[in-house]
Amino acid sequence: MKRVKRIGVLTAGGDCPGLNAVIRAVVKTAINEYGYEVLGIRDGFAGLIKKNVFPLTERDVSGILPRGGTILGTSNRDNPFKYKVEKDGKTEFVDVSEQVIKTIEYNEIDVIVSIGGDGTQSIALEFYERYGVPMVGVPKTIDNDLGGTDVTFGFDSALQVATFSIDKLHSTAESHHRVMVIEVMGRDAGWIALHAGVAGGGDVILIPEIPYDIDKVAETIERRVKKGKRFSLVVVSEGAKPKGGDVVVKKIVDDPTMPIRLGGIGNKVGDEIEEKTGMETRVTVLGHLQRGGSPSPFDRLLATRFGYHAVKLIHEGKFGQMVASKGNDIVNVSLAEAARNPRRVDPNSDIVKMAMALGTGFGI
Amino acid sequence: MKRVKRIGVLTAGGDCPGLNAVIRAVVKTAINEYGYEVLGIRDGFAGLIKKNVFPLTERDVSGILPRGGTILGTSNRDNPFKYKVEKDGKTEFVDVSEQVIKTIEYNEIDVIVSIGGDGTQSIALEFYERYGVPMVGVPKTIDNDLGGTDVTFGFDSALQVATFSIDKLHSTAESHHRVMVIEVMGRDAGWIALHAGVAGGGDVILIPEIPYDIDKVAETIERRVKKGKRFSLVVVSEGAKPKGGDVVVKKIVDDPTMPIRLGGIGNKVGDEIEEKTGMETRVTVLGHLQRGGSPSPFDRLLATRFGYHAVKLIHEGKFGQMVASKGNDIVNVSLAEAARNPRRVDPNSDIVKMAMALGTGFGI
Amino acid sequence: MKRVKRIGVLTAGGDCPGLNAVIRAVVKTAINEYGYEVLGIRDGFAGLIKKNVFPLTERDVSGILPRGGTILGTSNRDNPFKYKVEKDGKTEFVDVSEQVIKTIEYNEIDVIVSIGGDGTQSIALEFYERYGVPMVGVPKTIDNDLGGTDVTFGFDSALQVATFSIDKLHSTAESHHRVMVIEVMGRDAGWIALHAGVAGGGDVILIPEIPYDIDKVAETIERRVKKGKRFSLVVVSEGAKPKGGDVVVKKIVDDPTMPIRLGGIGNKVGDEIEEKTGMETRVTVLGHLQRGGSPSPFDRLLATRFGYHAVKLIHEGKFGQMVASKGNDIVNVSLAEAARNPRRVDPNSDIVKMAMALGTGFGI
Amino acid sequence: MKRVKRIGVLTAGGDCPGLNAVIRAVVKTAINEYGYEVLGIRDGFAGLIKKNVFPLTERDVSGILPRGGTILGTSNRDNPFKYKVEKDGKTEFVDVSEQVIKTIEYNEIDVIVSIGGDGTQSIALEFYERYGVPMVGVPKTIDNDLGGTDVTFGFDSALQVATFSIDKLHSTAESHHRVMVIEVMGRDAGWIALHAGVAGGGDVILIPEIPYDIDKVAETIERRVKKGKRFSLVVVSEGAKPKGGDVVVKKIVDDPTMPIRLGGIGNKVGDEIEEKTGMETRVTVLGHLQRGGSPSPFDRLLATRFGYHAVKLIHEGKFGQMVASKGNDIVNVSLAEAARNPRRVDPNSDIVKMAMALGTGFGI
Repeated sequence: MKRVKRIGVLTAGGDCPGLNAVIRAVVKTAINEYGYEVLGIRDGFAGLIKKNVFPLTERDVSGILPRGGTILGTSNRDNPFKYKVEKDGKTEFVDVSEQVIKTIEYNEIDVIVSIGGDGTQSIALEFYERYGVPMVGVPKTIDNDLGGTDVTFGFDSALQVATFSIDKLHSTAESHHRVMVIEVMGRDAGWIALHAGVAGGGDVILIPEIPYDIDKVAETIERRVKKGKRFSLVVVSEGAKPKGGDVVVKKIVDDPTMPIRLGGIGNKVGDEIEEKTGMETRVTVLGHLQRGGSPSPFDRLLATRFGYHAVKLIHEGKFGQMVASKGNDIVNVSLAEAARNPRRVDPNSDIVKMAMALGTGFGI
Repeated sequence: MKRVKRIGVLTAGGDCPGLNAVIRAVVKTAINEYGYEVLGIRDGFAGLIKKNVFPLTERDVSGILPRGGTILGTSNRDNPFKYKVEKDGKTEFVDVSEQVIKTIEYNEIDVIVSIGGDGTQSIALEFYERYGVPMVGVPKTIDNDLGGTDVTFGFDSALQVATFSIDKLHSTAESHHRVMVIEVMGRDAGWIALHAGVAGGGDVILIPEIPYDIDKVAETIERRVKKGKRFSLVVVSEGAKPKGGDVVVKKIVDDPTMPIRLGGIGNKVGDEIEEKTGMETRVTVLGHLQRGGSPSPFDRLLATRFGYHAVKLIHEGKFGQMVASKGNDIVNVSLAEAARNPRRVDPNSDIVKMAMALGTGFGI
Repeated sequence: MKRVKRIGVLTAGGDCPGLNAVIRAVVKTAINEYGYEVLGIRDGFAGLIKKNVFPLTERDVSGILPRGGTILGTSNRDNPFKYKVEKDGKTEFVDVSEQVIKTIEYNEIDVIVSIGGDGTQSIALEFYERYGVPMVGVPKTIDNDLGGTDVTFGFDSALQVATFSIDKLHSTAESHHRVMVIEVMGRDAGWIALHAGVAGGGDVILIPEIPYDIDKVAETIERRVKKGKRFSLVVVSEGAKPKGGDVVVKKIVDDPTMPIRLGGIGNKVGDEIEEKTGMETRVTVLGHLQRGGSPSPFDRLLATRFGYHAVKLIHEGKFGQMVASKGNDIVNVSLAEAARNPRRVDPNSDIVKMAMALGTGFGI
Repeated sequence: MKRVKRIGVLTAGGDCPGLNAVIRAVVKTAINEYGYEVLGIRDGFAGLIKKNVFPLTERDVSGILPRGGTILGTSNRDNPFKYKVEKDGKTEFVDVSEQVIKTIEYNEIDVIVSIGGDGTQSIALEFYERYGVPMVGVPKTIDNDLGGTDVTFGFDSALQVATFSIDKLHSTAESHHRVMVIEVMGRDAGWIALHAGVAGGGDVILIPEIPYDIDKVAETIERRVKKGKRFSLVVVSEGAKPKGGDVVVKKIVDDPTMPIRLGGIGNKVGDEIEEKTGMETRVTVLGHLQRGGSPSPFDRLLATRFGYHAVKLIHEGKFGQMVASKGNDIVNVSLAEAARNPRRVDPNSDIVKMAMALGTGFGI
């Protein structure tokens, strides 16, 4: 095994609180503890395609621990194996992975720390397997749906934004006797909706793993009205779907006579609740607010541990691996394994059962 | 003049942080300082129509100062002079103001404190002028667009939600080299967008008072790109409008092939920016998050002062008046005057000019 | 085994964010899921001594999920086995446990859920073992130092207060080129200081488990100065202690000529740093701010799970047990075991080593 | 009048949220609007003594708007007219103002924007009057006690920290039936204590302008107990003082038998309340937490306006002036006038009377 002298680090995929904390830990550990040099790679794999790399020093990472975003920039559309190019007016996807290898060789990068979600780790795996590029992965996903690790940084911060938003909507719901629908992140997994729903006291929680029946949703709300609760809070994953069918998405046409209230699953659920219960309903789509801002202390600690352990893996020569969280420990799993098993909410899990026992409806 | 023994208090219109602080101050001042009794009226004027009133004691208002919402409930559709009823399958608007008078007389309410926006104060004025019901108004509007007062409670709290949301979007915008559009409240007045835009460092601010040219918006963003700033933050009032025309609103039809990204002015602006600049653009609609949550200290103090002064006006027999803020003082203005002059952003005002000098574009 | 019909619930010991979430979950689960009645016991065991119990319904726990404090009240000085009484001008400690048993019997309480720290659980254990009172414990400690459970609710919330306070002090430290010392909770265990220190980027962390040498602390600070960092942040557990000796506490005498800057370990460390480094030093003692306010989403979820599982244990007839967190699961451990093994920071643990690698000093 | 080409900017005195917002507005306005060059002066007047100045560009101020602290550094002990030097083992104060003039001339600084409190503006005034250095002041004080301006930036942010801390202590006070004392900033003026006390629902507020009688304080607390309120919140300015005498400060001696609970006025008041009422009392000293963190939107806007107008004054050749806030306008007052009239709470003001009417005691 070649001795490592210089490591590259990149962040790819959607923004996530804690990215800077990982970068800081990687740089400090690499330089202070092992005497490595560190190169920053801009905008994820795009930086390797476009030769956009630069030295990272301790000074560069000073003060970034509490900051959202990533000082390296990110990109979620630049897969070097399927790189989008415009040619003769047409869009094509070409393999530019050779260019990436050239950048790596030219800059004498011995190993890359790739911080990203399942898409990113799949690309890292492909470079590792096909070209033998030493790779160490750091898992990143707001949605907490990445396999191989108990939890990822960013999830706790997103959960806080979601929960405190539910808190905010609560008083308006109660004062106006309204149904408030809030759509949170989670395309394939309902972790944010489930945890924020329980933490925020949601009356209905709809997640991708439990397809809902809108009539059951309306029943839950109406049962509350009978008990004197003239308002309800409905927490919906962006990936929630009705039983027996995908969401029917909608097309817009210009028409000045129409009200302005449209959109994704949150609005669909809101419309249907209003129709079925006759109660005034309002919809909030949280969107990107969940990705921004200063990471929570939990996420800062986890991200820092991930960064530190990623460099430790390099020192131990364990490539093709991803750092992961198991209980109170940081361990490593193979990139292959990580990409294979996404984490989903088990409809029979303890937390779902508990939420039901406490009176929360899941539309079933 | 009849001696006041019992006052009624109601909250009407949209939710607003600080309503509970006003109620608390009214109740405590009335009971402790002047020995009045206080009746709470539920859900705005609807409570007077439906005879839904109840005694309010100091115990009822204990601990509500930092809470969002209103313990009295509110309603923004129950104008007693144009009350919506369903009759023979048709919707009609009838005058039920006599019923209100009966409730007032039956409960021996000597004067009413009406906490609400311009709609509410117009109704209060009509009861005062037509029936001689002693009325004292307390101005309430998130949008800060009510005449006769420098500022209203709720605005500062909404401003904080808007500004901190811009802060959150900032890091994602920068990391992803994106344009982030954020739509904030303000149907007729751009105060929230202007103040939050300046406080959050928005690069473009679009408000109803300054109709925008989308090409100018794109120019501002592109000028930033040339200076090396690969991201921009665009703050849009919900009532912003393009030059020479109203917003063309949009109609939806079911079509599973369409992406889910539609809606109001924020989305319209976002779509057009993406089209014109070719930059990835994301839109966040803040909506009801701006109305909820614990009021800011500024709003708690202002709301408390308003409640205290409303009862003082009662003690002094000054009816048909509304409390108002002028500089550091609380004064009173006639309800008639208050309803007449809405506050708008002056396009030539100092703050707008300053924002321009600092580099912010207004689409002109 | 007698069939359970009525359960009592009490909160004892210091305030802790999440207590209301536990109470809410106990009440809702007991009533909805198992049809039990619930009695609230006021002010911990004091309520059983003073016969201060009352029925708890779903209505009583409505809306308390996000609230700090405990609706049951608490007390941390009322051990029924050593109850403090004043007699003939003297203080005596007497055993009033019989009175507690009478209250339990009179009110037909079949089992008690005791929510509290190690002191509380020891009392619960004594009632269970000596009198056979069915007891189920719910662990509670800000400091996270209770054995038998990975983590307790309240810790994450305290951590946030501590971390965000460090964030606040950071900018002042940097602007003024000062050393800022912050004393956080943790009499016997350094968890808050360690986690907040890492999450807040503390330059020195002093905890009870690692006695410090003040000269080493000064060295760390001076090494930073040499690297151009003219400020440092020092995070100190209230139970931190110098090598080879306990803290020398201090006595005050009236003397108008003295400056006002005194106190516990934080101030001692601050004084000594100023003396040894000559740098301007300021000390902040966080104190009770760490115990108050709305619980974090993490704590709300954990507290809710604890409450739900406590009632499940009752249903399963598992008394003398405490609910506990292990990985992602909620399990149960015997009260005896829980009281026996306090959790301490291992000076050789991964997180301590990591903090050192990142440049943080521990005064050794 | 010489044409201005280059302006210097410095921040002096205690840290204050909003300093960076002023600096940013000064730099952007100077460069974009008037084509001036800007030099940053490090650590207040110390930078002029030590020749520590450097060019400030738009890039330097990018992203600093929401940040606490000051990128220029500050110092509150470096008065060039009384500069502290050590000579022959003795401390002397010498006049080094000539050195300042040399630095100004050497760097061709045409005018200086001095951002600071009354001490800073007095120094600025002396340079203006004695040496004819063109000076424009920007008022800065957390305590809001500077004359000539309605309000200063930083106050609203400090108020928020103070109020939200009271909120946090509230739940613990209530759960434990305790008196919670909180000491906030305000050495000479009680603005923070008064506003935060009202906004946080404080039961007693003690400020420098209204010397208190501790027996009256105890009476207020005991009256609450009689009404069933077994807790109280006492908000104390650091400069509060008892009737007929200054605070007796305290001296410490080493004595391991003493408890660790000492300090300033907050602790004195806490001790005396505990003694007089027999109620458990806890004290929190907020200290530097009030100076740090991200400025509130209100402060960001005000600070930005101040910075913009300071440069406008330069453009208009109005030197020896300070920007100030009057109602909704930014105006200018002479530095001489500003230093002369500190703002104090009027014991007969509307807000004090209101607080009393609502039941708050002032110890009189």
